[in-house]
Amino acid sequence: MAVYKLSALAAMLGLTIRGGQGADPDITGINTLDDAVPGEVSFLANPKYVHKLASTRATAVIVSPEHADQVSCALVSPTPYQDFGRALALFAVRQGSFSGVSEQAFIHPDARLGKDVTVYPFVYIGPEAHIGDGSTLFPGVYVGEHCQIGARCTLYPNAVLMAGTILGDGCVLHPGVVLGAEGFGFTRTPAGIQKIPQTGSVRLGDRVEVGANSAIDRAVLARTEVGDDTKIDNLVQLGHNVTVGRECFIVSQVGVAGSTHIGNGCTFAGQVGIAGHLHIGDNVTLGPQSGVAQDIPSDTVMGGSPAVPQGTYMRTLALMPRFPELFKRLSRVEKLLEQLAGTKPAD
Amino acid sequence: MAVYKLSALAAMLGLTIRGGQGADPDITGINTLDDAVPGEVSFLANPKYVHKLASTRATAVIVSPEHADQVSCALVSPTPYQDFGRALALFAVRQGSFSGVSEQAFIHPDARLGKDVTVYPFVYIGPEAHIGDGSTLFPGVYVGEHCQIGARCTLYPNAVLMAGTILGDGCVLHPGVVLGAEGFGFTRTPAGIQKIPQTGSVRLGDRVEVGANSAIDRAVLARTEVGDDTKIDNLVQLGHNVTVGRECFIVSQVGVAGSTHIGNGCTFAGQVGIAGHLHIGDNVTLGPQSGVAQDIPSDTVMGGSPAVPQGTYMRTLALMPRFPELFKRLSRVEKLLEQLAGTKPAD
Amino acid sequence: MAVYKLSALAAMLGLTIRGGQGADPDITGINTLDDAVPGEVSFLANPKYVHKLASTRATAVIVSPEHADQVSCALVSPTPYQDFGRALALFAVRQGSFSGVSEQAFIHPDARLGKDVTVYPFVYIGPEAHIGDGSTLFPGVYVGEHCQIGARCTLYPNAVLMAGTILGDGCVLHPGVVLGAEGFGFTRTPAGIQKIPQTGSVRLGDRVEVGANSAIDRAVLARTEVGDDTKIDNLVQLGHNVTVGRECFIVSQVGVAGSTHIGNGCTFAGQVGIAGHLHIGDNVTLGPQSGVAQDIPSDTVMGGSPAVPQGTYMRTLALMPRFPELFKRLSRVEKLLEQLAGTKPAD
Repeated sequence: MAVYKLSALAAMLGLTIRGGQGADPDITGINTLDDAVPGEVSFLANPKYVHKLASTRATAVIVSPEHADQVSCALVSPTPYQDFGRALALFAVRQGSFSGVSEQAFIHPDARLGKDVTVYPFVYIGPEAHIGDGSTLFPGVYVGEHCQIGARCTLYPNAVLMAGTILGDGCVLHPGVVLGAEGFGFTRTPAGIQKIPQTGSVRLGDRVEVGANSAIDRAVLARTEVGDDTKIDNLVQLGHNVTVGRECFIVSQVGVAGSTHIGNGCTFAGQVGIAGHLHIGDNVTLGPQSGVAQDIPSDTVMGGSPAVPQGTYMRTLALMPRFPELFKRLSRVEKLLEQLAGTKPAD
Repeated sequence: MAVYKLSALAAMLGLTIRGGQGADPDITGINTLDDAVPGEVSFLANPKYVHKLASTRATAVIVSPEHADQVSCALVSPTPYQDFGRALALFAVRQGSFSGVSEQAFIHPDARLGKDVTVYPFVYIGPEAHIGDGSTLFPGVYVGEHCQIGARCTLYPNAVLMAGTILGDGCVLHPGVVLGAEGFGFTRTPAGIQKIPQTGSVRLGDRVEVGANSAIDRAVLARTEVGDDTKIDNLVQLGHNVTVGRECFIVSQVGVAGSTHIGNGCTFAGQVGIAGHLHIGDNVTLGPQSGVAQDIPSDTVMGGSPAVPQGTYMRTLALMPRFPELFKRLSRVEKLLEQLAGTKPAD
Repeated sequence: MAVYKLSALAAMLGLTIRGGQGADPDITGINTLDDAVPGEVSFLANPKYVHKLASTRATAVIVSPEHADQVSCALVSPTPYQDFGRALALFAVRQGSFSGVSEQAFIHPDARLGKDVTVYPFVYIGPEAHIGDGSTLFPGVYVGEHCQIGARCTLYPNAVLMAGTILGDGCVLHPGVVLGAEGFGFTRTPAGIQKIPQTGSVRLGDRVEVGANSAIDRAVLARTEVGDDTKIDNLVQLGHNVTVGRECFIVSQVGVAGSTHIGNGCTFAGQVGIAGHLHIGDNVTLGPQSGVAQDIPSDTVMGGSPAVPQGTYMRTLALMPRFPELFKRLSRVEKLLEQLAGTKPAD
């Protein structure tokens, strides 16, 4: 467990201390305003919680300048949430307890391991696979033949890389991730269902993370690809030949059907579904549970199923509760009109 | 395979026998009205199937008093479905075939195992982990450092507990469950995407069940928590810092985003999505595929996406098929009005 | 890597060569029109890409007769996509690198293995399990007691078959599949939640495929069943006692609740949800994200949540953007009518 002097912590984060009466206590961790105890640092990122500044027991609080006077000791930050994250990283303990290469693993003699690779028991590494320097493979990981794993990757327990999968540097695969399973390639014929072999592979860029039990299928031909710094949450499905650009956030339970291309900087909220063979531009934001069946240009915010521009979606939602009123008003109009005209308008 | 005399079975269940002409046959199992053969007991829980009483070959049928005369031999019950469940439990065979601690498992010397623990081959148990008395770990289970598993827990194949996860007594983790993977903590900054370390853990209460391939993420700080007796189905996602109360049913493919708090006794149907940072009260029922973006008070039934009170949802659904009619009626009204007034109302 | 003379490839596929000036080059693989290099064969299945015929570098292209003159060398096919698939199969390399039965696997002495079975390291096979001839079990596979696996099945890494699961011949389970986990069987009672034991099993027919991390639960009694040639994509959930017929396509992230019966030849798009205890006929097609709460007769196409016939769904969608207009028009009608009548129609 790391311990830092408050002054050292402030220096590492590049923040100034305000208050605190010149003391320089030991800091043992980071915690919420509610849960922090003396010796811990807390933070205020969401103004909703400003009332908690008065009662927190934290020794110091990372706050923006306008709140610095509301705590006895402030670490003044222009970006409190980011600096909270950086502070947390200083105290975070890396998971895992194993080092070296276990004799209870299976490593094919034609596999190549870089320097400082950690291979837990019950890992399987196939022929012609290459594991980059400093990467860690937890128990139950399967690395198929011809896979290439970059440097400093972490493959958590039971992650599976089918043959030919390529990872850049610094990727993180959470437990149960499956990369490179065969895409869903079948076609109905008069003679029954025909399987289309899936002969391509999957390639992730650098610093891609994939959440627990998510699946990214291998391509029919060529590659299913995910660009640098894209972060994928749990239980997400990317079909064969999907391509995702850089710095996207794909939240839990999203599904993207085959051969759809997604640009850079997109954010898809939970349970979004996207049909196949579409082009989604850069910086596209999709609201939760939205369903996309058409191409989307860059810099667009969409919502609903089927998805429409967010403004249209919000206006439609606002009218929904007024439908019963609409029917009532129309009936009254018809009745009055009938009286006026002496005839039925609805005939 | 268990075999009981009918009289012994009735006694164990606290039920009275009606009919059966004083015979006391051997009962070898429980089955549906359609499939039961002589020697088996069946049940009627759903009145929809009452017509099947006449043709069943079951030796005896668990029925409510009003149907007791419709079968040749009845086990009369005030709650036939519950008593069917209890009868089934008397015949159920526990899964698994291994006992003891396998030499093909990896158990860190600093792990502690209680009495009568079963550890299958290919299990990994990290340092400072504690496995409670009578618990069973199937093949491929990973128990990270500092995990605490209560008594009589069952961890089915390939269940993963990342470091620091805590289980109460009598929990069941179905195959492929992932507890304590890192939450989806990233923030966009001008310098690129910053990762927020996820330093908390996951804690389940007593008798919690988690279905196949579901994922519950570790907290940023503190704990993601699930209360006693809550039952979670397959492929469910609970984000970091979610808390779920006691005796909830969370059905398959539900997703709950980070920091949402859920009360006791809730029932969420399949594919429900709940946004982050919300408060859901006690005894809240959510219909299938509903989408929640706002706090919900206790004792509420909601449906739709975005979710509205169930009555409103049902009324809106009922109006949906009448929209084409609405447009037609309005056009007729406009035309008639034009004739009457000599002017166009829609201008 | 397979290499065929063009003439030999054409003969194997039963296609005629047009053009090519009598040459008979070596063919080393199959690729897209864009990516093919000399020595490779490409294909035109989607008329959208016809403009690419002029620029492809492929040595020959599988095309329908009407496009045969647009390439320098055509393999003329009545069904180019199917013949592309067949050609691809001739070049596809089977995954995997292991043969024989690993000494690092656990095989219960009472298990029975057929001829030419491949068992990777870290596989667990329980007592009374039977593995059919020519089947392959990748690392981390769990086969519980009394399971029966047919001939030529492939169980990819970390697939789990709980006790009593039955597979026909030629089945493929992708990584992380879970068959036969306990169904979600609980009932609320005044004394708390009661568990209903799940004592049935799961049975798949011949040539069934199940995608990565999908789950099919065991039955309460009897069996959850999937018919011959049905193909299931990733992250799909089938509840206890569901039955699915032959030749169905169930796309990613679909969920089917317990005891629902599905006919033959159905196609369910991504993220569909189907409630429990329903009857879905033969050849039913469900659009993406649709939600089914009622029985569906055969030969029906449905969409929306709750699902309605596709025509109705499309008409309703077309009207959605016109709701604001509807409100405006109605207000104008009311105003005009008020002027005419000297009274308010909405009172």
